[in-house]
Amino acid sequence: MLRPCHLVKNECSFYALTVPRVSEAHRERRRRQILDAARGCFVRNGFHQTSMQDILGAAGLSAGALYRYFGSKEEIVEAIAAETVGQVMSMLGPLSEQQPPLPLTEVFERVTTGMAGVAFGPEGVGYIAPQVWAEALRSPRLHALVESRYAEIRGAIGTLVRAEQAADRVDPAADPDDVAAFLFGALLGFVLQGAISGQARPEAFTSALAALTRPRQPQPGRS
Amino acid sequence: MLRPCHLVKNECSFYALTVPRVSEAHRERRRRQILDAARGCFVRNGFHQTSMQDILGAAGLSAGALYRYFGSKEEIVEAIAAETVGQVMSMLGPLSEQQPPLPLTEVFERVTTGMAGVAFGPEGVGYIAPQVWAEALRSPRLHALVESRYAEIRGAIGTLVRAEQAADRVDPAADPDDVAAFLFGALLGFVLQGAISGQARPEAFTSALAALTRPRQPQPGRS
Repeated sequence: MLRPCHLVKNECSFYALTVPRVSEAHRERRRRQILDAARGCFVRNGFHQTSMQDILGAAGLSAGALYRYFGSKEEIVEAIAAETVGQVMSMLGPLSEQQPPLPLTEVFERVTTGMAGVAFGPEGVGYIAPQVWAEALRSPRLHALVESRYAEIRGAIGTLVRAEQAADRVDPAADPDDVAAFLFGALLGFVLQGAISGQARPEAFTSALAALTRPRQPQPGRS
Repeated sequence: MLRPCHLVKNECSFYALTVPRVSEAHRERRRRQILDAARGCFVRNGFHQTSMQDILGAAGLSAGALYRYFGSKEEIVEAIAAETVGQVMSMLGPLSEQQPPLPLTEVFERVTTGMAGVAFGPEGVGYIAPQVWAEALRSPRLHALVESRYAEIRGAIGTLVRAEQAADRVDPAADPDDVAAFLFGALLGFVLQGAISGQARPEAFTSALAALTRPRQPQPGRS
């Protein structure tokens, strides 16, 4: 059956030009609504003990509405995981590109402060991250996601470390990628300890990093 | 019904004196057999998607035999979690008590090397740890276990930090508990990155820590 569009060309053109934009915003809101509801369920009950029915209920949507956005719970888990592991890079990326390079301690101060602000609310990414890690050890798709995002983060930290080495604020003889992996590990540990204790203390992280890296006179007999 | 024990007192005394010891060893072997089988299942399928039936099958035991040792899957999960979070302290504890105190870098070199040896085999604790963390965020019993063992580890690292501060190898003005939390976080990050990449590089961790903390001449204009 021909749709009547050719009969009212102007209205149809108008429709084609404007409605998709509204619809895109609507789609994005719906998607957000579903992901927020799912995250709450996952924090409370875990990926495996949450059903699509639970997510529907929490989002206040019909199955038909939900399945238009996500074909399965696995797709929702992947979207949540991508947001979770993307959080650090969204803060770190712009900081690691500044010129002249920011000192490491300042970058970590900003990133841990930012993480503390978003990660440890009642449904924050800090409480999802350990589930994402556990799941990444069994799901090849999540593993690929986590591994590639984490390599990206280590790369950004590595850029900062190289700048610190050029300024002789970190031992130039060290392998910058090893130092980056160590510092990223410390950041992961900050997220995990924050989730377990229920409070994150970015100022403690930053002052510890500053204390460990503060220049001191070499002692006699030590290299 | 009276057991015939009183008829053969000598044999019974002998029995009472020796068999319990054998039985204790037997119990320990059976317990080990169950926990090893369960750990394999948990690594492959996760806590929630593993049934008691799966564990029975992997251990090659009857339900009767298994339930003599563990009343539920939750009890097995708790025992595995306790072993997992106990691993670091079993290595760190003795090292942190040595006199004179060992340098931090040496302690972390030994602990990361030890962890790399046990944590990243096919069914190593490294692959269980993220599940324990995720579960600790929902199970009050696991949360209490993880929180208390981790406080203990931070305490042991804090002791080492205080000794380094007394020797002026770590800034004496820093809060040693903050430095301990930072370093423990780095160790957690080492375990996690090792599990995700499938390989742990203790020498990279140790050389990064050494590079960050190596004494350097203070630069003009920097404190």
